[in-house]
Amino acid sequence: MKNLQNAVPRIVDVAELAGVSVSTASKALNDTGQLREDTRTRVKEAAARLGFVVGAAGRGPADTRTYTVGLLTTDSFGRFTIPLLMGVEDALAAGRMAIILCDTRDDVLRERHYLASLQERRVDGLIITGRTTDPRPSVGLQIPTVYAFSPSDDPEDHAVVADEGAGAAMAAEHLLAMGSRRIAHVTGPQRHHSADARAVSVQETLGDSLITPALFGHWSEEWGRTAVDMLLASHPDLDGLVCGSDQIARGVTDRLREKGIDVPGQVRVTGFDNWEVMALASRPPLTTVDMGLAELGRLAGRTLLDLVEGRTEPPRRQVLAPRLEVRASSL
Amino acid sequence: MKNLQNAVPRIVDVAELAGVSVSTASKALNDTGQLREDTRTRVKEAAARLGFVVGAAGRGPADTRTYTVGLLTTDSFGRFTIPLLMGVEDALAAGRMAIILCDTRDDVLRERHYLASLQERRVDGLIITGRTTDPRPSVGLQIPTVYAFSPSDDPEDHAVVADEGAGAAMAAEHLLAMGSRRIAHVTGPQRHHSADARAVSVQETLGDSLITPALFGHWSEEWGRTAVDMLLASHPDLDGLVCGSDQIARGVTDRLREKGIDVPGQVRVTGFDNWEVMALASRPPLTTVDMGLAELGRLAGRTLLDLVEGRTEPPRRQVLAPRLEVRASSL
Repeated sequence: MKNLQNAVPRIVDVAELAGVSVSTASKALNDTGQLREDTRTRVKEAAARLGFVVGAAGRGPADTRTYTVGLLTTDSFGRFTIPLLMGVEDALAAGRMAIILCDTRDDVLRERHYLASLQERRVDGLIITGRTTDPRPSVGLQIPTVYAFSPSDDPEDHAVVADEGAGAAMAAEHLLAMGSRRIAHVTGPQRHHSADARAVSVQETLGDSLITPALFGHWSEEWGRTAVDMLLASHPDLDGLVCGSDQIARGVTDRLREKGIDVPGQVRVTGFDNWEVMALASRPPLTTVDMGLAELGRLAGRTLLDLVEGRTEPPRRQVLAPRLEVRASSL
Repeated sequence: MKNLQNAVPRIVDVAELAGVSVSTASKALNDTGQLREDTRTRVKEAAARLGFVVGAAGRGPADTRTYTVGLLTTDSFGRFTIPLLMGVEDALAAGRMAIILCDTRDDVLRERHYLASLQERRVDGLIITGRTTDPRPSVGLQIPTVYAFSPSDDPEDHAVVADEGAGAAMAAEHLLAMGSRRIAHVTGPQRHHSADARAVSVQETLGDSLITPALFGHWSEEWGRTAVDMLLASHPDLDGLVCGSDQIARGVTDRLREKGIDVPGQVRVTGFDNWEVMALASRPPLTTVDMGLAELGRLAGRTLLDLVEGRTEPPRRQVLAPRLEVRASSL
């Protein structure tokens, strides 16, 4: 790769590979002119194959965009932000946008500093995300902004969120469908929106098959193990467990195995997150709710592009349906 | 936070908070003029507290820098890149540099595309990282570049790496010091530089206390469990296990517990990575080698700033010593 600099492709290379004139290639890449859609696609594919980047010279004189987007997260790029980020990147790469990374680490001063810096750099737009689904304060800048996963507290803002309640209902319905009738729900702290929303939905779905009110605790394996000890003491006939996270579900399956209780033979278990490090390493592997974070990221990226380009007005709030990943822990 | 835009701080605010004149504040923030170091520091702290960003107007006329750095990773922002990224961010924020994120997903075409795009944006520098410590091809651009964690194959390039061999030796020495004398080493695939370098170092350190050649397999919990079954069949008197990763060590402790073998009473166990999701959730929590990825990131960021600013010529290769995080699995 030593001579990459000499190998930076030119538009004549793209035109040649696509079998069109330079002028046609230019129109196709800049989304201008009257061209057949398959011609435009062929040119773009040729550009992508060659790594050709449409430069400032290829843009119209009125183009004041910086083709740069700020991604602000409170999650320290933890496990919720990463898949989301990859989705955002998928969507924005198609728009030739670069992503500037801003990790606020839950520090308000740091967030202000980043927002001021992004404004000064004249970013075309902002994507705001975090580790919880609790609504966060709106940043309130005059820049196109999309909240992803973590919505803002302002209903006028554009937000793309997962339907956590629907996800929890899917897990509960699945256990009912498999035949479980004495089910408990073990989840995180009640003050977290995620725990509360999932618990409400599990209760509504299970009705009389929920043998005890939701057990709120921590998002940890240890809490999963403790909860099993508590439940078996009071409800030894338990036959299903809807868990609020994969970490909890992993602790649950570990403790059930240690007690000699077969999963799924005696107790069926579901997780939440489809965090593969946990879900696949569990014994047995976990049936779990996948919130589709990468898809959420793609949707946030496409929504931001719509706002930046001003072609269509996207909905203020888009809710993505999760899906259930079925594995051995519930079958 | 609604009125943040109106609250963007001005240099007069910084000067007032620091108790200096605007002219002094400007010199301090631009690293120019003759000032006492504590004055410069006080002004910079005031700027940081207010979220003041030094803008183009505050820079000298000859400043052609974009104050932008590209971070290219093959790790899909997985668990090695994240702490490293946070360290890079710590170091670069002090230099008011923004980080543009480029996730190549191990795709050569994607990497070429990103590199061309970063050149076109005239980034001041590049940081290249990835998920393995195997040397990677040099990108060979005429831009200041630092390889972090994953070195390049060109000794002329600047690289900041962890001393994996020293880390593995620390774990092995610790088991010897605790009294273990019949020790085995369970690790990942031999073709990975990490597995090989660690195994060589463990063998050199343990000598006759290594009861069997390194067991190469996979970076997984399942391999840790399987390896325990193999080892107990051939060496039931085993009293120590140096594992090549925390995932392997977690599988090892799980299977030892299932076999009724006490950790650390009968067998002491060490991991590698200090990946808290694994190391703290293990029963007992793992003694493990911490490669100091955040510190590695800070060092890479500072090295890049040195290259960009051209003030000092940093060494071509900097090797960071790991540390041993001692927990209950080996005591």
